[in-house]
Amino acid sequence: MVSLHPQVAGFRFSGVECGIKKRGGLDLGLVVADAPAVVAGMFTRNVVRAAPLVICERRVAAQRTVRAILVNSGNANACTGEPGRNAALASCQALARELGITDDEVLPASTGVVGQLLQTEKITAALPRLVQGLEDDATGFAHAIITTDRWAKIEVQAVEGARVVGIAKGAGMIHPDVGPPQATMLAFLFTDARIGPLPLQAMLAEACQHSFNICSVDGDTSTNDTVLALASGRSEAVANEDDLGLAISSVCHRLAQSMVLDGEGAEHAATIDVRGLKNDSDARVVARTIATSMLVKTAMAGCDSNWGRVLAAAGRSGVEFDPGQAAIAIGGVSIVSQGLPVGSEAEARANEVMKGQVYRIEVVLGSGAGQASYMTSDLGHGYVDVNAGYRS
Amino acid sequence: MVSLHPQVAGFRFSGVECGIKKRGGLDLGLVVADAPAVVAGMFTRNVVRAAPLVICERRVAAQRTVRAILVNSGNANACTGEPGRNAALASCQALARELGITDDEVLPASTGVVGQLLQTEKITAALPRLVQGLEDDATGFAHAIITTDRWAKIEVQAVEGARVVGIAKGAGMIHPDVGPPQATMLAFLFTDARIGPLPLQAMLAEACQHSFNICSVDGDTSTNDTVLALASGRSEAVANEDDLGLAISSVCHRLAQSMVLDGEGAEHAATIDVRGLKNDSDARVVARTIATSMLVKTAMAGCDSNWGRVLAAAGRSGVEFDPGQAAIAIGGVSIVSQGLPVGSEAEARANEVMKGQVYRIEVVLGSGAGQASYMTSDLGHGYVDVNAGYRS
Repeated sequence: MVSLHPQVAGFRFSGVECGIKKRGGLDLGLVVADAPAVVAGMFTRNVVRAAPLVICERRVAAQRTVRAILVNSGNANACTGEPGRNAALASCQALARELGITDDEVLPASTGVVGQLLQTEKITAALPRLVQGLEDDATGFAHAIITTDRWAKIEVQAVEGARVVGIAKGAGMIHPDVGPPQATMLAFLFTDARIGPLPLQAMLAEACQHSFNICSVDGDTSTNDTVLALASGRSEAVANEDDLGLAISSVCHRLAQSMVLDGEGAEHAATIDVRGLKNDSDARVVARTIATSMLVKTAMAGCDSNWGRVLAAAGRSGVEFDPGQAAIAIGGVSIVSQGLPVGSEAEARANEVMKGQVYRIEVVLGSGAGQASYMTSDLGHGYVDVNAGYRS
Repeated sequence: MVSLHPQVAGFRFSGVECGIKKRGGLDLGLVVADAPAVVAGMFTRNVVRAAPLVICERRVAAQRTVRAILVNSGNANACTGEPGRNAALASCQALARELGITDDEVLPASTGVVGQLLQTEKITAALPRLVQGLEDDATGFAHAIITTDRWAKIEVQAVEGARVVGIAKGAGMIHPDVGPPQATMLAFLFTDARIGPLPLQAMLAEACQHSFNICSVDGDTSTNDTVLALASGRSEAVANEDDLGLAISSVCHRLAQSMVLDGEGAEHAATIDVRGLKNDSDARVVARTIATSMLVKTAMAGCDSNWGRVLAAAGRSGVEFDPGQAAIAIGGVSIVSQGLPVGSEAEARANEVMKGQVYRIEVVLGSGAGQASYMTSDLGHGYVDVNAGYRS
């Protein structure tokens, strides 16, 4: 029986309160690798890119190993220009001095409000406490990086010869679109596997494609989305690469599911499964259009199996299909067949399914082989409460 | 001084309650042209297309004149298959018999819930009252076609030699994308101008491009969006075509503005003006992305000049620009210059502007000649109230 404690050989974690978050709480997180750890990264494709993300991306591209990740929540340090860049560099430099490593070995990440200068002095002042708090358990770190999240997100998976620990945060501006050397979702994966940077990058890219990049809370892609994977190589055994890749994918998928379920104000999470189109790419466009439709998301909030909104969203996606062949099921309850409603009794049963926290919406739009999934949350009063007053 | 009564030579209007709307109220509208009227039309590009829209589109394409428009609200007659098509045809046929014209001279349009069969018998039973109620004033008709709208939308403009009356309804599933011979926005324009179908179609297409097609309430393009323009030719004078085109554009723009301001649950409407990009097409993509961002729309609801959300939305649009050159102003108050915040005092003044009903958000992203505008409404609790329980 494998222990599922949130820890992995070669890494120590810490989280403290340094005073950046207006409402208080842990807001500064640190991960330290005992020895240089192999690194891979995926970064937002938004052309507006936060200062720490630009630095982080450059460092991941330039070197195959790093020693530390420094994360603050409450301030995204985005749209802050040269002063923002200097603030991120200074924070890394102060940490490097504290740890006795080089600046380049520190990867910075930030999440929170856009357009406010990062208060480096608060970070610098908290560094001794942060370093002193380093421990094997990642729970404190996971709490330090969250913003509007209701819970910390940690997933652990073990395979023969390796262990993977994933830590992520949501909960708004969540529609990640991360690409290789280029999500304010932040996700960090740590493994003790012995692996090089190229296979690690390939595994991470593949995992993102089927996890973070197919989930949406509000359709808004952040300026700060960052996914990092670090490998300490401390495992005694050698892991099978396929098994390790699957474990990384599985951890990313579970973190993405948790992020969507914890979407700002969300009470429901659905997986949209689209099938029957010409190819997977078309299916993905349809699934994404349904998953980001405000009318579909409000119907989810109302537990209303309003399939007309689902079909209308598919129809405006730009992908061609025959609406007369459409079939829709919610939680396995068929409500549309051959483009026509099955009946009010079926819809009533689907409404019951939609009262659940998590369910599946299947949309079949023909007989092609193309298929894709997307994860989405509901749009209810909770979302408006969080977002009509976030900065104030 | 031109009279601005909602009437125009050659057309009579009517609206009655026939029992389709669950909550009651006028729900059946009729326009009759005294003699065959030249027609032009624009229809949704959604691949899921309501039965009445398909019939209407075919009739507009096949003939240069029509005699009547029959509109019901409360039921979209979309996703209703062959029975839905038969219901629309039967309604037109019954009206044609009542008026002594041919079936093909009647254009049907529907708006309301998707996926429920239209109750033709309710329409047929109400036709005698509907025809008897025909009058010069379009107010009753305008009220009969609305659904979740809070007010009826009528705009009148007169030029030398012609008069244009426009009537529209919103208020949800509003992100029109209408194209020539192919919008549940419905908009109807009536003029007494002497004009042929081709120039009328060209004027309507141009007008839609800068009005309905640049507005969004919820980002969801309807299955039923229809814009029709009818010309009776009853004017004594001949209108200058440029003047007439401008009048049609102006009426469409005012109707679109009214639709956005009356977006479901909306309390604020903003025009997003984007400038400085390489070309107008890029500027339009950026403006549309900002206008449909849930985070921007909730910031509007909160009267929060959260420009980071505006810039982040622009950044994920797929259009390249230099964020360091970005400038943003709200209601003329500059809050971002050279990619950096102007200051908290400016933001406080912008917040005051955002308490108003209508304002302008200017986004300059470089020095290119490309520019575009988009109209959008806020996303607040009112929107959720309307949409988390619309069918129930």
